[in-house]
Amino acid sequence: MKTLKELGEHNAIAALTANLKAVGDDCAVLPLDAHYDIILTSDPLIQGVHFVPGTDPEAIGWKAAARVLSDFAAMGADPQYLLINLVAPPEQDFQTLEKIYAGVSKVRKLFDVDLVGGDLSQGSTLELHVFGVGRVPKGKALLRSGARPGDVIYVTGPLGGSFESGKHLTFMPRIKEAKWLRQSGFVRCMMDISDGLATDLRHILKASKVGADIVSEKVPKVGTLEQALFDGEDFELLFTVRAEDAADFDFQCLENLDQQFPRIGTITAQPEILMLDSTVLELKAFEHFR
Amino acid sequence: MKTLKELGEHNAIAALTANLKAVGDDCAVLPLDAHYDIILTSDPLIQGVHFVPGTDPEAIGWKAAARVLSDFAAMGADPQYLLINLVAPPEQDFQTLEKIYAGVSKVRKLFDVDLVGGDLSQGSTLELHVFGVGRVPKGKALLRSGARPGDVIYVTGPLGGSFESGKHLTFMPRIKEAKWLRQSGFVRCMMDISDGLATDLRHILKASKVGADIVSEKVPKVGTLEQALFDGEDFELLFTVRAEDAADFDFQCLENLDQQFPRIGTITAQPEILMLDSTVLELKAFEHFR
Repeated sequence: MKTLKELGEHNAIAALTANLKAVGDDCAVLPLDAHYDIILTSDPLIQGVHFVPGTDPEAIGWKAAARVLSDFAAMGADPQYLLINLVAPPEQDFQTLEKIYAGVSKVRKLFDVDLVGGDLSQGSTLELHVFGVGRVPKGKALLRSGARPGDVIYVTGPLGGSFESGKHLTFMPRIKEAKWLRQSGFVRCMMDISDGLATDLRHILKASKVGADIVSEKVPKVGTLEQALFDGEDFELLFTVRAEDAADFDFQCLENLDQQFPRIGTITAQPEILMLDSTVLELKAFEHFR
Repeated sequence: MKTLKELGEHNAIAALTANLKAVGDDCAVLPLDAHYDIILTSDPLIQGVHFVPGTDPEAIGWKAAARVLSDFAAMGADPQYLLINLVAPPEQDFQTLEKIYAGVSKVRKLFDVDLVGGDLSQGSTLELHVFGVGRVPKGKALLRSGARPGDVIYVTGPLGGSFESGKHLTFMPRIKEAKWLRQSGFVRCMMDISDGLATDLRHILKASKVGADIVSEKVPKVGTLEQALFDGEDFELLFTVRAEDAADFDFQCLENLDQQFPRIGTITAQPEILMLDSTVLELKAFEHFR
């Protein structure tokens, strides 16, 4: 009988959700009405896994809400509502919980999202489970499956070292950039980088049935190349644009967002083959259970 | 500095959510489009709190999903989508998780609800956090605030002893009855009984600014009167009907649902005064943190 640790988190999720609808992207995309699709997602934030004991409680709240908003950004969707299940030990001081909620409130005010419900229960560990509801114009959600050979691969910002720098607690979800990227019509495929560039790009390769070749010197790095490839929790966006549109896209980014995004590589035709500087990159993943 | 235990679960939720929208009923009710309101809810199910170690894993999955569906029933709403955040220790055997998901699947197939997402993380305790999305025709959700003096109080089934009997793991969410109750037009106010009749009826009294007088011999009981009043996790519906409609309502129930529901008391004009056989009932609540 296998344990979760032996099986690994991603394999376990894949096995448990194999016969379910709408699972696989950062969020579920489902029909809402004639004009919109509904976007649903949920993320846990657990002490000892996603933050260490003693972390500033406002930063805990910020991260819990910002991670869910990053899922919406990954789809180019507008977040609308949050619900939070909070778990805490009975001896937890209430002031810390108030500060966690204050951190959540900062995020929701900045992005005009309402906290509309949730629950509070006793448990052995401090945990937040944040559920998000939003929407996107019908059929316009940016999926992992849209990359095609020849596409240019972009990221929205520097990668790696997020735990050491504390960025994993303070990052700004790329909601504003994501909305423009979707509306621009240039972006064919998008996700956010939560498990590291190498692991997350493999999700795009699998969903899109393509390969990729990353140019190591083009990857924006906080620390080493290895950190940029394999560290997690960057919460930058990873997306592709048709090669023939790339120059126009770069120009439009400068005009509309006052910035340009680095081109880090190219989508290739070899299914699920990830290359670094044209050499096949061995599989190495950021897996919580391993 | 107060701890959660000193403050109590309901007081802590009230303090944390004081300045938020749409919190207070079993579910949040929010505008969706011209025809429907969207209904959102979330419920945790935690080992050691909501079930004991060694509980049949299929029953754990059943309860986790059925509790959320009971929240939808409480509003007379149609559940559509579920997301589940599962937390488990790394040494958890995978087969148990598969059985938990099988229990969830039984519920969702029975009520035609899709599981569309979620997450899996390591943690010290086995936990499920279930998030539900549904809808109800615009303005038609049955709230806690609709009870008026003179209304007859009903419940859908026998109360008390749910932990001893195991009903808390196997109960049938009252989705079918709830939909008919809403569509009938007779029901003015509804909620589900999760914390015990006395505690939950007080929520209605507070939201509706009314009182109630319960007739002890009319309360359908599994065990003692005290159990029926104060035990939790019955997941029956508690609702009110105008006195002048009650006879017609009873007849329509028999015609349409093949059953009648017991009348257990009357709504009075004294705000938040709960009486049992015309004597004021002291405050005693089923509170997880106390």
